Amino acid sequence: MNLERLDHVGVAVEDETQARAVLEDVFGCASPTEETVEDQRVRTLIYQLGDAKVELLVPTSDESPIAKHLEKRGEGLHHVAFEVDDVEHAIETVDASELEMIDEEPRTGVEGSEIAFVHPKGTFGTLLELVAFSGGRTG
Amino acid sequence: MNLERLDHVGVAVEDETQARAVLEDVFGCASPTEETVEDQRVRTLIYQLGDAKVELLVPTSDESPIAKHLEKRGEGLHHVAFEVDDVEHAIETVDASELEMIDEEPRTGVEGSEIAFVHPKGTFGTLLELVAFSGGRTG
Repeated sequence: MNLERLDHVGVAVEDETQARAVLEDVFGCASPTEETVEDQRVRTLIYQLGDAKVELLVPTSDESPIAKHLEKRGEGLHHVAFEVDDVEHAIETVDASELEMIDEEPRTGVEGSEIAFVHPKGTFGTLLELVAFSGGRTG
Repeated sequence: MNLERLDHVGVAVEDETQARAVLEDVFGCASPTEETVEDQRVRTLIYQLGDAKVELLVPTSDESPIAKHLEKRGEGLHHVAFEVDDVEHAIETVDASELEMIDEEPRTGVEGSEIAFVHPKGTFGTLLELVAFSGGRTG
């Protein structure tokens, strides 16, 4: 497995209006694409910045993993995502190493992607997402 | 000012050997370029991943801001950097907004870049670096 490219950075956000004002009014970012990932109970606002993206993560329920992250750590950087060719193969590679997956099966992410998270305890305290765009990237 | 592109993600690292093993042996990343930023007392290991980079940050002294970050928060995501045309102009724009700069003058970063950090209290708990490559990017 190779990490092909840095796809996006995920940022947990409590005050969406404020975050949008900063990115769009101060930093001149174009309006984001918006998509809700139901099984994560999170709304995403995706800003394309060159070949990579910033993904704002807004919980849609108190049960969302992002709501729990906000409660524990406050707003801020949540994860970094890398594109891989094949998420299932990537999971096998991680399982054969000393690292551990959070997701042992690919899940559906935004833009029809397949995603899986690696447990941060083996990756220098950093939550890594592996993402594959089977139908090609739209972003 | 516009954020042109996501340039890199900075990750504070305590155990450099372990971090390199994960990125290079498990995830197949090519060897990084290494550079020390003296005024920040930090050694950087930069992995090119598509058009963006992962920058591992290893303190070279207990007085390094990264050493303090590691002490307080442990290893993990530290900042995200966006390319801008002109750092001085970007600083003026931030100063004219409700946000606050950490650096009121551009500093020298890796690869001969000019950089300045924005205070995270105004940017959804996220430390933002603004970076300009006056001589063109080498990465």
